[in-house]
Amino acid sequence: MAKIAVLGHGVVGSGTVEVLEKSKQSLEKKAGQPLEVKYILDLRDFPDSPYKEKFTKDYGVIVNDPEIDIVTEVMGGLHPAYDYVKAALLAGKSVVTSNKELVAAKGAELLAIAREKNVNFFFEASVGGGIPIIRPLHQCLSADKIMGIAGILNGTTNYILTKMIRDNMPFDTALSTAQQLGYAERDPSADIEGTDACRKICILASLAFGKHVYPDSVHTEGITAVTPEDVEYCENFGGSIKLIGWAQRLDNGKIAVMVCPAFIAGESQLAGVNDVFNAIMVRGDTTGDVVFYGKGAGKLPTAGAVVADIVIAAKSHSSSRTLFWEDSEDQDFVEKPENIVCRHYLRLSGVTKEQAEQTFGNVKYLVRASAPEDELAFITEELSEKECADKCAALSGSTLANIRVLDY
Amino acid sequence: MAKIAVLGHGVVGSGTVEVLEKSKQSLEKKAGQPLEVKYILDLRDFPDSPYKEKFTKDYGVIVNDPEIDIVTEVMGGLHPAYDYVKAALLAGKSVVTSNKELVAAKGAELLAIAREKNVNFFFEASVGGGIPIIRPLHQCLSADKIMGIAGILNGTTNYILTKMIRDNMPFDTALSTAQQLGYAERDPSADIEGTDACRKICILASLAFGKHVYPDSVHTEGITAVTPEDVEYCENFGGSIKLIGWAQRLDNGKIAVMVCPAFIAGESQLAGVNDVFNAIMVRGDTTGDVVFYGKGAGKLPTAGAVVADIVIAAKSHSSSRTLFWEDSEDQDFVEKPENIVCRHYLRLSGVTKEQAEQTFGNVKYLVRASAPEDELAFITEELSEKECADKCAALSGSTLANIRVLDY
Repeated sequence: MAKIAVLGHGVVGSGTVEVLEKSKQSLEKKAGQPLEVKYILDLRDFPDSPYKEKFTKDYGVIVNDPEIDIVTEVMGGLHPAYDYVKAALLAGKSVVTSNKELVAAKGAELLAIAREKNVNFFFEASVGGGIPIIRPLHQCLSADKIMGIAGILNGTTNYILTKMIRDNMPFDTALSTAQQLGYAERDPSADIEGTDACRKICILASLAFGKHVYPDSVHTEGITAVTPEDVEYCENFGGSIKLIGWAQRLDNGKIAVMVCPAFIAGESQLAGVNDVFNAIMVRGDTTGDVVFYGKGAGKLPTAGAVVADIVIAAKSHSSSRTLFWEDSEDQDFVEKPENIVCRHYLRLSGVTKEQAEQTFGNVKYLVRASAPEDELAFITEELSEKECADKCAALSGSTLANIRVLDY
Repeated sequence: MAKIAVLGHGVVGSGTVEVLEKSKQSLEKKAGQPLEVKYILDLRDFPDSPYKEKFTKDYGVIVNDPEIDIVTEVMGGLHPAYDYVKAALLAGKSVVTSNKELVAAKGAELLAIAREKNVNFFFEASVGGGIPIIRPLHQCLSADKIMGIAGILNGTTNYILTKMIRDNMPFDTALSTAQQLGYAERDPSADIEGTDACRKICILASLAFGKHVYPDSVHTEGITAVTPEDVEYCENFGGSIKLIGWAQRLDNGKIAVMVCPAFIAGESQLAGVNDVFNAIMVRGDTTGDVVFYGKGAGKLPTAGAVVADIVIAAKSHSSSRTLFWEDSEDQDFVEKPENIVCRHYLRLSGVTKEQAEQTFGNVKYLVRASAPEDELAFITEELSEKECADKCAALSGSTLANIRVLDY
């Protein structure tokens, strides 16, 4: 018998209890033992819940109960989630979480405690919601040296960009539509400014490259500056604009990590990922490109991933050897943003083709209907961030847009 | 120390030894112990191989060596692979295989022996080559009731169909091109007639639904009858023709399993899977649609999947609880093909619209440039195979094509 505590009874928390209940029989068969939710922690009252006798407001009851094997943290936020999770691991309990903020900020520390205590710290649901990605990455692709990862990691921004592309909406209108449909929160900043995608690519990069990449080390741009004009040029380029979290092994031994809107070629498996869907491409030296696609959020998909982790935690009583990365206060292994190299889409005004070619060399021009006469748009060859910024600054005209072009 | 024997030194076998050697350090870290290939079994001589001292032609040496923990079978074919694998499991050794013919024919029996002996029988590489699908299906999606699976499971036929679609090639020319490029074998029948895809959907269906589905129970059609005319009509439909292996939970408690060319709508994540790539969509009641995409064959991708299985077999000394299905001589749980229901694309000659509508009711007509005057093409509503065949037979004209339209 594995006894479980669920911290938080919001969307994912209530979904987790629901899925555990609904599929009890098949889950217990898979876990090889009965599974019982003994406690649900929430500060609110749920007098009408069928589980009302399981509720507690006192975490001490949970962490001090030797019967509890698995603590499931689905509260979100850094505090008190971090304190609760740490205390659970130190008490020798396995922890399952969907909390990307927690894992991105404290993953290395919590994994080290889990290893020391020989318990599990699982977080499949923290990236890609219901899409299996964490476990495939460290188990199924273990023969690979991961060369790069690129993902559409945030459904809200992907929905907004899809509306901008399909319906020619400007950003603000697309955001309002997303808010009306409940796809974007009233305060959408964590989504549209890229913070959420940044946490997720930090988790994936830490796992793939073995050292904790902290969000502060990652240049993060959201989608607020993307305009319908850029969408039109991207169509002429033959691709789609997507908000991409990406991490790449560099020849100098460092890794490049960034979150930014990007032009993605139409042939890419990421280009056709629309609406609120997520997809993650993993590029391995042995397996080549593998893509994982599905719903990156939502009550049941996320709860499903949490519950699958619970089943595996119930089965395996020792710490996972492959789900691990080292801590690293020194973030020098993360390449400085200014040195990161890729092609750029530039939209300029007041610049002639001659000036552009003098400054950027070979460029590939893009066109759109009804562009003002003094607008010029093109794709550069590969340039570092700094080179690109310096060249733009050296031109007499002004830079209306600078969006990276990624080969994923 | 885990000692390994590799049976077969063909493409996948030599790739397996190569990957084990190349990534030795990181693999041993993941496995928590040294990994050593002690034997390679092959009837041929490899006097120039750097591993020549490991070769043996006598399987008895391997199966009777108590030092061997893991037998890796990458010979292909049913015999002697089956005999060797069974003997290894009975001798208490874990087995890793890439052999879809073996797993599709004998999976249930071998899984039962593995469970009895408390060793592992792993076969991630048998479906989708380097794409993680077996482990995600039984571990990561364990909270789901699998409602359906649909996959582009054969790279050769997908390459041929891609050439037919993009370059307007007839089937024979596309096949020759594939053969010239080494994507199709000189005897391409296992690919183009659907046998290979059938073995793979049998493995996936057995795992997803818990009972062994034998290839003989599965209606299997290849792509030899697909014509450029059908490709054109599919374009007008707004989709792509793909060879799909699919399995679906039915309301009557049975499952439908089939391999056939199918019209797939353009919005589907399967529609954009081109060339030799594979993709598998899994439809869960909790997670919704999840898609796994990548290279379904090739030396290194397949070897990578084999090696990942070896690492996990080295780590976990007890039989997997979730990678299992029951045997079932009685295949009544597999719906008879004649009762399987879906929409159909029909191309008829000598039939008027009036006759078509009298017989089929509501239909959606398709058009193509330069169609003969007496040709009629349309999509039916949902019909069983039998109803569709009966209705076609009742018409005075002749049926030129009958291709299923699938909602994946």
